Amino acid sequence: MCVTKAVTISIDAMGGDDAPQIVIDGIAYFIKHEGYKHKLRILLHGDEAVLSNLLASKKAVRDISEIHHTDSEIAMDMKPSQALRRGKGTSLWNTVTSVKSGEADLGLSAGNTGALMAISMLQLKRKNGVQRPALVAAWPTPKGQSVVLDVGANVESDETQLTEFAVLGDAFYRAIYNKESPTIGLLNVGTEDLKGNAVIKAAHERLNESAIDLNYIGYVEGYDISMGGADVIVTDGFTGNIALKTAEGTAKLIGTFFTDALKGNMWSKFTTLLNSVALRKLRKRIDPRRVNGAVFLGLNGLIVKSHGGTDHIGFANAINMAVGLAESPFEKEIERKLAELHSEDDNIGFIA
Amino acid sequence: MCVTKAVTISIDAMGGDDAPQIVIDGIAYFIKHEGYKHKLRILLHGDEAVLSNLLASKKAVRDISEIHHTDSEIAMDMKPSQALRRGKGTSLWNTVTSVKSGEADLGLSAGNTGALMAISMLQLKRKNGVQRPALVAAWPTPKGQSVVLDVGANVESDETQLTEFAVLGDAFYRAIYNKESPTIGLLNVGTEDLKGNAVIKAAHERLNESAIDLNYIGYVEGYDISMGGADVIVTDGFTGNIALKTAEGTAKLIGTFFTDALKGNMWSKFTTLLNSVALRKLRKRIDPRRVNGAVFLGLNGLIVKSHGGTDHIGFANAINMAVGLAESPFEKEIERKLAELHSEDDNIGFIA
Repeated sequence: MCVTKAVTISIDAMGGDDAPQIVIDGIAYFIKHEGYKHKLRILLHGDEAVLSNLLASKKAVRDISEIHHTDSEIAMDMKPSQALRRGKGTSLWNTVTSVKSGEADLGLSAGNTGALMAISMLQLKRKNGVQRPALVAAWPTPKGQSVVLDVGANVESDETQLTEFAVLGDAFYRAIYNKESPTIGLLNVGTEDLKGNAVIKAAHERLNESAIDLNYIGYVEGYDISMGGADVIVTDGFTGNIALKTAEGTAKLIGTFFTDALKGNMWSKFTTLLNSVALRKLRKRIDPRRVNGAVFLGLNGLIVKSHGGTDHIGFANAINMAVGLAESPFEKEIERKLAELHSEDDNIGFIA
Repeated sequence: MCVTKAVTISIDAMGGDDAPQIVIDGIAYFIKHEGYKHKLRILLHGDEAVLSNLLASKKAVRDISEIHHTDSEIAMDMKPSQALRRGKGTSLWNTVTSVKSGEADLGLSAGNTGALMAISMLQLKRKNGVQRPALVAAWPTPKGQSVVLDVGANVESDETQLTEFAVLGDAFYRAIYNKESPTIGLLNVGTEDLKGNAVIKAAHERLNESAIDLNYIGYVEGYDISMGGADVIVTDGFTGNIALKTAEGTAKLIGTFFTDALKGNMWSKFTTLLNSVALRKLRKRIDPRRVNGAVFLGLNGLIVKSHGGTDHIGFANAINMAVGLAESPFEKEIERKLAELHSEDDNIGFIA
């Protein structure tokens, strides 16, 4: 709860469906609710005139922000390859550049995901000992939260990459949730040893045999993502992306059914009103804004991706995740563990 | 609604966590609620003494059932390879044999999934023009139901297999839900043409170019399974299994949150009581028993798998699905479409 080290966040003020309004409102919301715990400085990349105007009535945001003007931005539907060629000087590009230069501890954007990944890869480069960066996302469980990675940075992964994801996820979980030895599970179609494809079996064997300090508990199933079967769920980016979006769709479906059920008749409308405290509590627990913020792990510098369609509360949650990460010894931690992992590779003939 | 052709179902009375009790109770439940619509005959494979005892008080079940005695059964945790070697003469094995011999129109078991698939493959053999059979399962959406296949018969699938799954799923959807031209989507990590791995892109191209009568709408995402983005969702067995179990886990999670929220205080307990009609309606819509029954498609004979842990209501729903399928022209339909599909293969050089 005490104020920790000063953190500078580089923010793409123009990224997201309702930017820059939700970005500025999100920063204000974060400062109001969480600001007293942190020493925060913000670099706002975007159109100076527009941003100054929005900041006029937000003294708390203005006091800790610096506007870095740019008049171009990347469209939400631009292809990553185009973004790489034409993205220089945009708000998204410059957000990453501030991380690269060391001016900021971390970058945050609600803009185009593919463009953000491509531009981050290009500018920040992979961390030593990381074959492939991964996107990690959080999901609520009855026990707290689980994290899943990769949720879409790659479409395929081999066993070495999956093992690296376990190391990245472990460090991430400890940094964000302050849990000493998070459980790590490998997503599979069954929990028996003989199930799954060749890549998964090889990763399973590797994680079982490794002497590095990971609390690997073996295979977990889709069910475990939501039910907390493991703190960290490791999978390839294709499967992880589909699992996460399936979970989002199911939550949305049940929300729809719920609303329908309560609309049923006057009597249920009346009693729903009476019961609104309980229902508010429920809605809060399944609110997707609470878990907004996927982190791009494995680069020389941290990049957080907010959902493009989020509102100011969701954006504030993404800032919260970013700040927590920047304040933790996360980066040093993963560098140490990756080095341990790959010294094992050398001994057993893996190519890193 | 009229009584249609007579259907004979071969049932593994000993398969499932709470068999044979839930099997007999499930048949009774089905007869009570749906029986008037159908002309049903049941072959019950299992221990005669135990089953006769259970049937003593169930005249409606007894009247349409024939017990086929066997005193051995396959354990829920036996490996498929063991089941193939040692399974002969068990209730599960004999359930499939009755389908093979033509005595029954269809087989149903809540027993060991891997064993059921292996024994069905061995006895019934693949249908002409099917490289790999697939398990298809249903899922509720705001619009009705979607079906997903493959949900676990295979761990990997190539583009030809995915295309076959589209044909199988289309015929299945029309048979079960009486919808003329169900929409078919291919599960991917994004809806843009450039996303996904090579197998998915090839299947997408194939489905787009095919002249056979399929309402293919292109890529869909995990979100669409629950939100009804397509009627039939085609994917490989690894991804499908994980998506389905993720959806089940999420539904369970929200159920847990829901119960917690309503337990909050005396006031919410009281108002919940008042609101119980609406809540019952909601619970019914998200009740997993309503979608119990995965069907093993692509063999010479239909096999339905009930969830092993289901109760009598879930088992009755699996019977309902089985009967609906047996009464429809499903088998003839897929044979015709598969022939069309593979005559295209010959023309464009695919190997079937």
